[in-house]
Amino acid sequence: MAKDAGGLTSRAEDFPRWYQEVVAGAEMAENGPVRGTMVIRPWGFGIWELLQGELDRRIKDAGAENAYFPLFIPEAFLGLEKEHVEGFSPETWVVTHGGGKPLEEPVVVRPTSETVVNHFFAKWIQSHRDLPLLVNQWSNVVRWEMRTRLFLRTSEFLWQEGHTAHATEQEATDYAVRILRDAYLDTIESVMRIPTFVGLKTDRERFAGAIRTWACEGMMGDGKALQLGTSHELGQNFARAFDIQYADESGARSYVHQTSWGASTRLIGGLIMVHGDDFGLRLPPALAPSQVVVMVVRADEHTDRASAAIADELRSAGLRVRIDDQTAASFGRRAIDWERKGVPVRIEIGPRDLAEDRAVVVRRFDRSKQSVGLSSLLAEVRSALERTSAVLHAEALAFREAHTTSVETLEEAVEAAAEGFAVLPASEVGEAGEDTLAGYGITVRCLQRADGSLPGVDEGDLSAVVGKSY
Amino acid sequence: MAKDAGGLTSRAEDFPRWYQEVVAGAEMAENGPVRGTMVIRPWGFGIWELLQGELDRRIKDAGAENAYFPLFIPEAFLGLEKEHVEGFSPETWVVTHGGGKPLEEPVVVRPTSETVVNHFFAKWIQSHRDLPLLVNQWSNVVRWEMRTRLFLRTSEFLWQEGHTAHATEQEATDYAVRILRDAYLDTIESVMRIPTFVGLKTDRERFAGAIRTWACEGMMGDGKALQLGTSHELGQNFARAFDIQYADESGARSYVHQTSWGASTRLIGGLIMVHGDDFGLRLPPALAPSQVVVMVVRADEHTDRASAAIADELRSAGLRVRIDDQTAASFGRRAIDWERKGVPVRIEIGPRDLAEDRAVVVRRFDRSKQSVGLSSLLAEVRSALERTSAVLHAEALAFREAHTTSVETLEEAVEAAAEGFAVLPASEVGEAGEDTLAGYGITVRCLQRADGSLPGVDEGDLSAVVGKSY
Repeated sequence: MAKDAGGLTSRAEDFPRWYQEVVAGAEMAENGPVRGTMVIRPWGFGIWELLQGELDRRIKDAGAENAYFPLFIPEAFLGLEKEHVEGFSPETWVVTHGGGKPLEEPVVVRPTSETVVNHFFAKWIQSHRDLPLLVNQWSNVVRWEMRTRLFLRTSEFLWQEGHTAHATEQEATDYAVRILRDAYLDTIESVMRIPTFVGLKTDRERFAGAIRTWACEGMMGDGKALQLGTSHELGQNFARAFDIQYADESGARSYVHQTSWGASTRLIGGLIMVHGDDFGLRLPPALAPSQVVVMVVRADEHTDRASAAIADELRSAGLRVRIDDQTAASFGRRAIDWERKGVPVRIEIGPRDLAEDRAVVVRRFDRSKQSVGLSSLLAEVRSALERTSAVLHAEALAFREAHTTSVETLEEAVEAAAEGFAVLPASEVGEAGEDTLAGYGITVRCLQRADGSLPGVDEGDLSAVVGKSY
Repeated sequence: MAKDAGGLTSRAEDFPRWYQEVVAGAEMAENGPVRGTMVIRPWGFGIWELLQGELDRRIKDAGAENAYFPLFIPEAFLGLEKEHVEGFSPETWVVTHGGGKPLEEPVVVRPTSETVVNHFFAKWIQSHRDLPLLVNQWSNVVRWEMRTRLFLRTSEFLWQEGHTAHATEQEATDYAVRILRDAYLDTIESVMRIPTFVGLKTDRERFAGAIRTWACEGMMGDGKALQLGTSHELGQNFARAFDIQYADESGARSYVHQTSWGASTRLIGGLIMVHGDDFGLRLPPALAPSQVVVMVVRADEHTDRASAAIADELRSAGLRVRIDDQTAASFGRRAIDWERKGVPVRIEIGPRDLAEDRAVVVRRFDRSKQSVGLSSLLAEVRSALERTSAVLHAEALAFREAHTTSVETLEEAVEAAAEGFAVLPASEVGEAGEDTLAGYGITVRCLQRADGSLPGVDEGDLSAVVGKSY
């Protein structure tokens, strides 16, 4: 495929442009023909598949089962929960024709599925024995967006959305927090290697129709915040709107307490903006479609056999390995391409190295090169992958710490948020403070305990993490 | 969840009604609120996830990579390939409004993605080095349907659609056949355990825009055919419509040769209709979300510990196991529910059996019960699963053979197709013959060699498999 032979804009020079160039240069995604839509190319989708696998396993470990609800929702459903319709109605795409004729009732292409899911929950839930009901779906959703950016904000995106119903408010709270911590936070920290603030959203920032929203927030390479996953307590709002009641052991009927929670392809945008450098993407090994690329410098029978043997050895050890023997293209061009794509380790197999039973191992994260004897290649590659995972997290954490300032007043917060995050007592903000911050393009990203742990719901003594956001 | 306590309609009495009752009774799916749409419930979706995994692995083994193309397609795209638009235009759902306003150009919700994929192939393919380009996507698609039936024909369904481009027609033919055989046929036979006819479609039955369509066809329990997977050679039709050309080594430009291929949630309908019996679904072990259910007859500490130990032992051996300790419901009711869901093996743990270190193993396929010593439980379960897999295929094959008749003339074919399939020389059918058959609601399902192997493209001496179809 045709590629730009030139370098990338540097992050320091123009971060948004650098981002676009990485997305294009690493062949991750491009704009679709319809306003704001996105084509996810194999390299980007390979990352998404690995991320999906990690999230899916954790969601199942939390007891939820996957299901699928329809793309099309009757327009009237959206109006049943008042806050929800106010939040989503202006964002919808509407189908008015089918089979060559106008529809009797227009249908909305799902922007999120609370309404249609809860229509069915009302049928499926009768007794306390049907609870908790824990359902997740992987799907596409669409929203009308004025300004779009690949992965970060697109008209159509891919995500998972979980929907649950519980007998008590406490169980719903516990489950919303469990998903936040065990599915989202754990994936984002231990798989994506992104240091994450977790906490409650303010009323102003919570999901339309929720009573509480919990969120994971990461700091991007330009100091701005990106919301990486949210978990909502819906209280009994949808239960009342859709009449979802259960009978307890005595036969008395009550409305269920619910949660919903989602994470999307936006995570890939976060991955790029946290770990990328001026040479392109840098992938944590757990999310690299190819963790190692074996590059043949010049093709001949001996080299081909050697690279196949090396690839086999690494694959047997459980690694994802690709051989690049496209020697019709220049070696430098190919190396730049793999660097842009963020493959953690390159192994360069040249005839001279091979004659000495050696190969060159290049680590993507610091671009260091090392000549390695073939007998210790597997150990070196493993060590390079472990180091990549550790260093990516450490660098991101150091960056976040250098751009997060503890302050005491709103004025100081506004100043600090020009460079990154400010952390201040939540009592200094309040609704009026949020208005003031909004005037500077700053929002409260989350409320947390001083030690960064998840706050209790009614806890008074919280810190607000504030910053500009995507 | 509320369940009908009564039995199912028998297959012999009313097959379509039996099908609907199995889909509902096994909690696999139900109708969505918008015309023809479907909710896939966790049990049905669990089957789909396993089937997806099997297909996905085989598709990747054939060299294709997953990607994602947009749901929304500009209406004008559909018109670029003449046969394609004639085939799909009457079936589309059209979005005319977004963000509260009319769109400048209406967009079609994808009925299939040839047009939008090939719009991008034209950008990505420049040189022979970009070929072959092998892409697959898992997605939802929508089509306007007059009469819908869960899984078999729904307005929205889930599927995978593969799209490829090759330098030569031979390579395209080979790849279309490779997917048909290595991905579809192998999954349908060895995983779904459905005996399958494979072959070419006639011109009348081929995909809108293709030059050749290859198909897998199964016989359902009522003798009708269900198309289970199709692989199309598109020739250069889309390449010309979307201007997809590559430069060969000399720099001369040519249009690519293409394929597309798909399999959908319809496969689940086939699974039900081939293997189900009067007690519900019977699942091949490879597609059972739970292969074994350990049923606690009466809960007490000793029984709970024993069932946990049994489940652990089976899980360690790699089996998917669920414990049913919902003893508030009657044992008989629970047994019927697992039977309907088609779980291949039930282990019933009663206090008296347990006192003798025994349990009862029930095979779903023949409903046989056997008391088994706990020390040989794993071996017995494994053997029951293997037997299930073998018997389901053997029974389906015997049924198909009993309902397939070799005939010499169209008249005989019409008579035989009242009960199942007729096989006759393709030369006896022809276009006029297809018209005649159509008058009886009969179609040519595929053209194949006498020995059932895949025919060569230009081979004259073919048999036609004809029958009524879903």
